[in-house]
Amino acid sequence: MKRLVLDTDPGIDDALTILYALASPEVKMEAITVVNGNCPMEQGVINALSVLELAGATHIPVARGMDKPLLLPVINAEVTHGKSGLGYAELPPPKASPTEKHAVELIRDLVLQDPGQINIVAIGPLTNIAMAVRLYPQIVDAVQHLYIMGGAINHCGNMTPQAEFNIYCDPHAASIVFHSGIPFTLVPLDVTYQTLMTRDDLNMFAPLQTPLSDFVIKASSYVMKYLSESQEVMGCALNDPLALAALFQPNLLDINHLVLDVDTNYGVSMGKTFADFYNYEQKPENGYAALNVRARDFVEIFIERMIKISQ
Amino acid sequence: MKRLVLDTDPGIDDALTILYALASPEVKMEAITVVNGNCPMEQGVINALSVLELAGATHIPVARGMDKPLLLPVINAEVTHGKSGLGYAELPPPKASPTEKHAVELIRDLVLQDPGQINIVAIGPLTNIAMAVRLYPQIVDAVQHLYIMGGAINHCGNMTPQAEFNIYCDPHAASIVFHSGIPFTLVPLDVTYQTLMTRDDLNMFAPLQTPLSDFVIKASSYVMKYLSESQEVMGCALNDPLALAALFQPNLLDINHLVLDVDTNYGVSMGKTFADFYNYEQKPENGYAALNVRARDFVEIFIERMIKISQ
Amino acid sequence: MKRLVLDTDPGIDDALTILYALASPEVKMEAITVVNGNCPMEQGVINALSVLELAGATHIPVARGMDKPLLLPVINAEVTHGKSGLGYAELPPPKASPTEKHAVELIRDLVLQDPGQINIVAIGPLTNIAMAVRLYPQIVDAVQHLYIMGGAINHCGNMTPQAEFNIYCDPHAASIVFHSGIPFTLVPLDVTYQTLMTRDDLNMFAPLQTPLSDFVIKASSYVMKYLSESQEVMGCALNDPLALAALFQPNLLDINHLVLDVDTNYGVSMGKTFADFYNYEQKPENGYAALNVRARDFVEIFIERMIKISQ
Amino acid sequence: MKRLVLDTDPGIDDALTILYALASPEVKMEAITVVNGNCPMEQGVINALSVLELAGATHIPVARGMDKPLLLPVINAEVTHGKSGLGYAELPPPKASPTEKHAVELIRDLVLQDPGQINIVAIGPLTNIAMAVRLYPQIVDAVQHLYIMGGAINHCGNMTPQAEFNIYCDPHAASIVFHSGIPFTLVPLDVTYQTLMTRDDLNMFAPLQTPLSDFVIKASSYVMKYLSESQEVMGCALNDPLALAALFQPNLLDINHLVLDVDTNYGVSMGKTFADFYNYEQKPENGYAALNVRARDFVEIFIERMIKISQ
Repeated sequence: MKRLVLDTDPGIDDALTILYALASPEVKMEAITVVNGNCPMEQGVINALSVLELAGATHIPVARGMDKPLLLPVINAEVTHGKSGLGYAELPPPKASPTEKHAVELIRDLVLQDPGQINIVAIGPLTNIAMAVRLYPQIVDAVQHLYIMGGAINHCGNMTPQAEFNIYCDPHAASIVFHSGIPFTLVPLDVTYQTLMTRDDLNMFAPLQTPLSDFVIKASSYVMKYLSESQEVMGCALNDPLALAALFQPNLLDINHLVLDVDTNYGVSMGKTFADFYNYEQKPENGYAALNVRARDFVEIFIERMIKISQ
Repeated sequence: MKRLVLDTDPGIDDALTILYALASPEVKMEAITVVNGNCPMEQGVINALSVLELAGATHIPVARGMDKPLLLPVINAEVTHGKSGLGYAELPPPKASPTEKHAVELIRDLVLQDPGQINIVAIGPLTNIAMAVRLYPQIVDAVQHLYIMGGAINHCGNMTPQAEFNIYCDPHAASIVFHSGIPFTLVPLDVTYQTLMTRDDLNMFAPLQTPLSDFVIKASSYVMKYLSESQEVMGCALNDPLALAALFQPNLLDINHLVLDVDTNYGVSMGKTFADFYNYEQKPENGYAALNVRARDFVEIFIERMIKISQ
Repeated sequence: MKRLVLDTDPGIDDALTILYALASPEVKMEAITVVNGNCPMEQGVINALSVLELAGATHIPVARGMDKPLLLPVINAEVTHGKSGLGYAELPPPKASPTEKHAVELIRDLVLQDPGQINIVAIGPLTNIAMAVRLYPQIVDAVQHLYIMGGAINHCGNMTPQAEFNIYCDPHAASIVFHSGIPFTLVPLDVTYQTLMTRDDLNMFAPLQTPLSDFVIKASSYVMKYLSESQEVMGCALNDPLALAALFQPNLLDINHLVLDVDTNYGVSMGKTFADFYNYEQKPENGYAALNVRARDFVEIFIERMIKISQ
Repeated sequence: MKRLVLDTDPGIDDALTILYALASPEVKMEAITVVNGNCPMEQGVINALSVLELAGATHIPVARGMDKPLLLPVINAEVTHGKSGLGYAELPPPKASPTEKHAVELIRDLVLQDPGQINIVAIGPLTNIAMAVRLYPQIVDAVQHLYIMGGAINHCGNMTPQAEFNIYCDPHAASIVFHSGIPFTLVPLDVTYQTLMTRDDLNMFAPLQTPLSDFVIKASSYVMKYLSESQEVMGCALNDPLALAALFQPNLLDINHLVLDVDTNYGVSMGKTFADFYNYEQKPENGYAALNVRARDFVEIFIERMIKISQ
């Protein structure tokens, strides 16, 4: 069983990822750490706690993390995720509170307590992870692996022409993480924009009529509407759940060992992630990236498990 | 019949393009203008003249153009094209001389003489074209269309991780041209790296044993060796000939109307060309780009014509 | 007697420079070439012609030049120079027309006709000069010297925190010129913001009551108002006239031989000119810059001559 | 009495600052936190401990801090500060050890223990301070004031043509600090390069013949040699001591409330600090900067106290 900390900015597909982790016996999610991104950090904490309560998983601790990027001003994605961050879904305020420990300290403690055992699945901007690797460099060797939803390699961006949202929000954090020596796998738009939950898929949740199925429908419909209108993407891209899948269902993905980097300059390419495929700069590979996916296979497994947990 | 000026930095695949133009009854190449790029400009003039003499097409004027990029220092591609620019091929020094008129003035004169009639096929850095559109903006509306071999949209670069050689050599010129209002079509690595003349293809020239077939073999073998060793590309990419094909064989390509731009900042993305596919910036489309190609169809037509002209 | 072409974007202090040239027996202004800058190029041509007619100097040819920067969009300085470019002054439409020859060609022809004899005093963005040195590199060695009003070395900018207006308008052109090999002297804000024509100075023109004195008062008052309100600079900075003075009154200035450069990246330092005083990069000096001025001496000579010509 | 934490990369003038703090009854230095900069962080810890032992001030705790910049690779200044960081001086290895607490945590604890009481004098790259303000934003309001040796406003750089060493080493950290809301005063090269301890000044230490006077002479001579040879600066610039003086001898300086910023783009202006003197961008002032200094007054006070403590 794969043990993991989920670092997240919940967020519709973040919420789906929390549920997918709970629905998957192959993984044990031991903590959720929250970062500014899809919604403001404090709202993200509320969302994480509420989704855990919806799923009856209140034993999982949730920690407050960085409430803004390292250098850049705060950006949120209200247009994609709605005012609360959960689309059309409305959850009751959570009863539980976040941990006293800061996300960055919680990551350090969990990783160092069981060296080589803990994975991090980071599905928001990388601000928490960057702070952790810089302040506690000993975690670099102690993490089992870091899975990142982020970037766009041979695909256009979903925030600017070239940049994907998570990386664009805090490109400096991404640069720190990519060059920190931590073992990581990037799950970029190249693959996540192929894993679309369609309207037909979503209709399968309708008969269930449980609070959880209701949540999945209302949350997912929001992003579905946004993507179809703004990008002609016909479905809800399962960006964040696919990054979790990379941890325990790696066979779904074609993963390459690459020289990966990000542009941190202000300008048209800010936040652009790229690979040096021909290794012009003769640098050692610093990470992995998923460049192909058996997309429909993944979506079907995802739907199946989400229906099961919703019943 | 399509009339054209070929703006070029000859260069192996530039030489093949000159021959392909001569082999194609659908086009009339009325002048060759030379620019610094694959080889120094003066060497490029010699190569253009020599190739024309090899093919018995000495009636086509060749003009000296810009011998360095607008802002950046000179870069050449000796590693790809060999010391002379023509790979293993060695041609006798040309008997003819270039025109007295500068390339930029020749472009202006040809375009303005027959407004709406003249196409430009630009297969080197865009320095000549940028100077022409800035100094003589009246040509912007008088050119029929500009076809550019250059850029890498959803493909990695062949010069840096992100940048294609022609655009990287003079990104400022590319920026000027892209935003000049001139109607243009970009033929990027996305398509040209699919159109590979293989060793088997090249072997078909062996029995001919003419000066021209000998040239095609010796020139192409050089770039074939380079691409296989440095980029694991198994064949001679027909970058420049495909840009010419876009002029008179557009059905081979899928062409999109797009918002196209280039990064001119010094840094990791310098010379990166990109499209704003989702039009985040709400700008009008400024050009076309070929994103798919019936690659083998093109290679076969190309081989067939090149064999015919070589006999 | 120093012979010169004045390259200008007239502009209040540009108009004063035209008059100062006419008032100074040490120089012979042989042509005026116009570039986009303080006002749109076509308006600048009108202004140059009108000022020449006001001063009875209609024998001096005026040429249209570049109507926009090389890469950047057009910027003008209506806030500093007023709607027409001449502040509160209103001149009748000129009777004369500009030359048929383009500014860039006129510069080439004048310079090459008398190699080593012609100076250029460039007091607008460097677009014309950049085009000329790139298209006709033979002028680089044939120009006697180029004097540039532009830049801010150890002084803040007057357009952005770091950038001076002329250089900011077309930093790419400045980069081309600085690295072209042409011998040049920069007259930056470091010195020009010390040469202030005060209200008291201007009051000396009041008794004259001629069209020319009236023009000087009305034009200068506009920029005086702007500088006092926006930058707490109390007077009309004689930016452009001081660049002309550098040609024939060099003793007024302390001039250093330096490694000079300009930042062309998009970002907070775009258009920043700087010197490598300690020569960290071990490059040869490429130009001169004036870093100190006997400011009041210059202002008094200027006033004296302007009063004389206004009588 | 002013209480302070000294954040430092010792370094010759850092060592002088430690001694100057010990020599000044107006201040109480409560801890030294070390950062990578003039020398590697671990060497800096040794140097700090050794200098404290030399001065008999072993009660002051020294903490290890960040051993590299946030994003950039490590740079040190061996050429300026010698192999050990202390010029020609050689001190015995320290007997004491650094604190167990990390510099960033020590800063947090000291500041939050006595809100409004603790000043930070930061005389190295700002990596420690940036980490502290981002991870523990509550210190922003709890610090009394932050004094920074760093930057070059109207002065050239001492690392690149435009950038000062401390800011250049970690411009991203500087950007974080400048925009964090922490009250700060920048003490840039504009003033510190005026405060030169001359050879004559240093000769006054010769008769003392104590370990401390010996140290001052040997350390200072090194940087004096470097500055005279590389920058024609004739003396040992008291960069870091002047930043400490800003805390308790502010009358020596002219300090302006300004909009301050730093360029973090890769390129010729990376690490350039600048002020928006005319406030083009209409932003609120975010810090103070010293732009003039009564230089000789400061040097004399400094020498007097250093002689006294050396006896």
